[in-house]
Order: sequence, then structure tokens, then C-alpha cells
Amino acid sequence: MPTLVLLRHGESNWNRENLFTGWVDVDLSEKGLKEATRGGELLLEAGVLPDVVHTSVLTRAIRTAWLALDAAGRTWVPVRRSWRLNERHYGGLQGLNKAETLEKFGEEQFQLWRRSYDTPPPEIGPEQVSGVDERYADLAPDLIPRTECLADVVVRMLPYWYDAIVPDLRAGRTVLVAAHGNSLRALVKHLDRISDTDIAGLNIPTGIPLRYELDDDLGVVSSGYLDPDAAATAAAAVAAQGSKK
Amino acid sequence: MPTLVLLRHGESNWNRENLFTGWVDVDLSEKGLKEATRGGELLLEAGVLPDVVHTSVLTRAIRTAWLALDAAGRTWVPVRRSWRLNERHYGGLQGLNKAETLEKFGEEQFQLWRRSYDTPPPEIGPEQVSGVDERYADLAPDLIPRTECLADVVVRMLPYWYDAIVPDLRAGRTVLVAAHGNSLRALVKHLDRISDTDIAGLNIPTGIPLRYELDDDLGVVSSGYLDPDAAATAAAAVAAQGSKK
Repeated sequence: MPTLVLLRHGESNWNRENLFTGWVDVDLSEKGLKEATRGGELLLEAGVLPDVVHTSVLTRAIRTAWLALDAAGRTWVPVRRSWRLNERHYGGLQGLNKAETLEKFGEEQFQLWRRSYDTPPPEIGPEQVSGVDERYADLAPDLIPRTECLADVVVRMLPYWYDAIVPDLRAGRTVLVAAHGNSLRALVKHLDRISDTDIAGLNIPTGIPLRYELDDDLGVVSSGYLDPDAAATAAAAVAAQGSKK
Repeated sequence: MPTLVLLRHGESNWNRENLFTGWVDVDLSEKGLKEATRGGELLLEAGVLPDVVHTSVLTRAIRTAWLALDAAGRTWVPVRRSWRLNERHYGGLQGLNKAETLEKFGEEQFQLWRRSYDTPPPEIGPEQVSGVDERYADLAPDLIPRTECLADVVVRMLPYWYDAIVPDLRAGRTVLVAAHGNSLRALVKHLDRISDTDIAGLNIPTGIPLRYELDDDLGVVSSGYLDPDAAATAAAAVAAQGSKK
């Protein structure tokens, strides 16, 4: 039976400072390093051993995958990376403090940018496009976002799901996807057929593997966090993020 | 111009204890961890920044690649792994102390196993075949060695060179290969057209990147270690390995 395991990267230095991060390549904090290792220990304890791993091209997800696989004794599995698993591009909000943004623009606008399905934040200018980063050098320029809403993430993530992850699952492999809050929300929305409205209420905690058991047609048979209590506590904390400085 | 960088993994726990390792999946020692990071610093200082990395499926090479790329700020590059880059399979010598083996079998037999081009050590029995390891589960059973001489390593390594590494080089990429003393000796033998006799005298030091500048037909334009003094000292120490317990 194909098994899919989703792992959101541990706390980054900007998560800790409550900044919008998006495509900015911020590394894990000390706490984030520990979360990633703990994620791998949970995999090992549950006997959920990845046969292959897919990551974004952002360091915080790549390092999370490495530390988790190292803790699970699986550093040797095949690795694939894609910008299509990157975090949502937060446009002009990248680098801004979430609480200050809330204060400046008000609750309604803030929640619209943060959780509405189809309202992207303001675009960044061409001079700020992340495409100048060497890791995106092979991409067609019109592919590189200047901002994204969650709907945009679904559209650019799904081709990677279908073309790269699904074949591994169809081969019966246990597949680990180490990625980001919003690229994983996009995937969960697809898997669990969550409506455009209801997805606003879904938060994925950092560092706790979320396991899906799938049938041969990749329908969801069952799903759950490997540490459900920790997941519930953490999801509540993510939901409250706007409120602290 | 295509650039190829070869990096032999840092000291492993069995290197330190002077044991034949081969396909046994021994991890890096503390010294080996530092060597790997130093290797990445040398890449960064020389401005030799890998666009892609190829490793064996053995932990000591995988961890070396990770630490070197981390030190060079390149953890996001594409990664490929193959058993074809593994260390030489040392057959029945695996796990034995090099000095004790020398004492037991005498200098001539010892050097024949260790450095002759075409004399493999004794085969291990079918019950000891590394193929029981899950990482080799997809291989045809007759592909998994029970022992290897360097000539065998050349034969099983070259298809990966031609099929996986060469296309990256032909695309003009800077390619890092993180592997082992003997799989890298096999590759250097091929690149530098070293004779079956002369290859016996070639030792590759751990943790010091060896850079090849290649022409478009992959002929060698120039080659050299990024830290030549350290490489000379280290190669001399490798050559003397039989003599200590």
C-alpha cells in the first residue's frame, strides 16, 4: 500500500521572529533543527521508513529532510528537489513582521492575504524577483512568481505531484515530502478534497510527520499525525501567529 | 568549460581502526566530519561551486557530500546516488584489521589484494551478501558483488560515469562526485589513462577536493587538488596504512 508522509520544516529564524518568509531562503533555528530530528525519530518509532524523499529548493526544507532521514537511518534514499514544492511566494509581504502588518493593514486585509484562497499579496518589482537566485536559473522567467495566493500554489504544485510524486506512490513506495506550510496545505487540499473556503482553517504544524495511507488509485484510506497530541497543540499555535510581535 | 570535482569521504570509524571496510556502511569519525566540512570550505574559497552532486549509497560518502555542500552553501543542488560509486567490495577481508591481515598472509599476498589491479580478495558466502541490505533491493542479484578487484570496480563504475555524470558535464555543469578511495581511483585511472600497473601507486587523500578542468570532449585540460600541500601529506599517510595496527 503506498504511503505518503508530509513533513513541514521545523521553525526557521524568521518564523521565530514572526516575519513573512515565502521564497526568502532562511535557515532553521536551533529549535527547528531539533524539530526536524524529532520528526525523523517519530518516523523510525512508527516504522514509517521513506524509500524516497522530495523537497523544495529552500534550505529549511532541505535541511529538515536531511536531519529527519539521518535520524531514521535513511540518508541513502533517492532525493528529488523542485521549486514547485517551495513555500508560497508572499510578494511584497516577504520580510515584514506579521504583527506589524496586521496592525498597519487591519485584521480583514491581513487575513485576506494570509488565509484567503485567491487574494495574493502585492507583487514585488522585477528587480526583487527571486529568479536572480542561481537555483532558479534554468526556469523560464515567466514561471517565477512575484506573489502568490494559495490557489496559485495549487496550480504550480500539482504538476510536480502528478509527474514526480505519484509515480513513486504508484510503485508502492513510502514517499516523504519535506516542504512548507502552504505547499503542504495545497497538497492536503487536493488529497482530502477540501473546499476553497474550508482550507482557510487548516494549519499544518512543523516537524510532525503527517502520514497518508493511500489505495492503489491514490484515494485516501486513512491519515494522521505520528504524534497527534503535539500536532493539535502546535496547530493552535500556528493559528494564533498574527497576534504576537 | 565542464568542471569535475572528486571528493573522497573523510575518515570513517573503520578507517580510524585500520579495518577493511568495503561495502560495510560505516559512518564518519569526528575527524571525518571535520574533513568533509573543510572540503566544502575549500570549494567555496576556490569558487568551485557544484551545480549537481553524485554520491555512492554508502553513508560516509553521502554525509561527506552533505557537509561539503552545506559549507559551500549548495545544499539545494540536485543529488543523485548510485551503488556504482560504492567503495570496492573487499570480500572476505571486510571487517578485518589491515595490519593483522598483513601479518597473517604476508606482504606479498596483502599487497596483491590491496593494490593489484585484477586479484580480488576471497569471496564472501551468499549468506553475507550485502544485497540483503534494503538499499540494494532493486538490483538484479547477479549484479551484487561478493568481492571485487579494482578492475571489477572500473567495469561497474564506468556505466554510471557515461550515463549519469557525463551528461551533466556535457551540459557545462560543475559536477561534484563524493565517493570512495577505490571508486575514485577507478575514475581517475579512466580520466588520466593510467595503466593497470601504474594505478597501484595512486592514492587519493580524504576530504581534499580534486578538480579536473575538461574540454568539450571531456579530455583533461588540467587537474589538481584544491589544497596541494595537504594532499601530498595525506597521500603518503594512506600509502603507509598497512603498517600500523
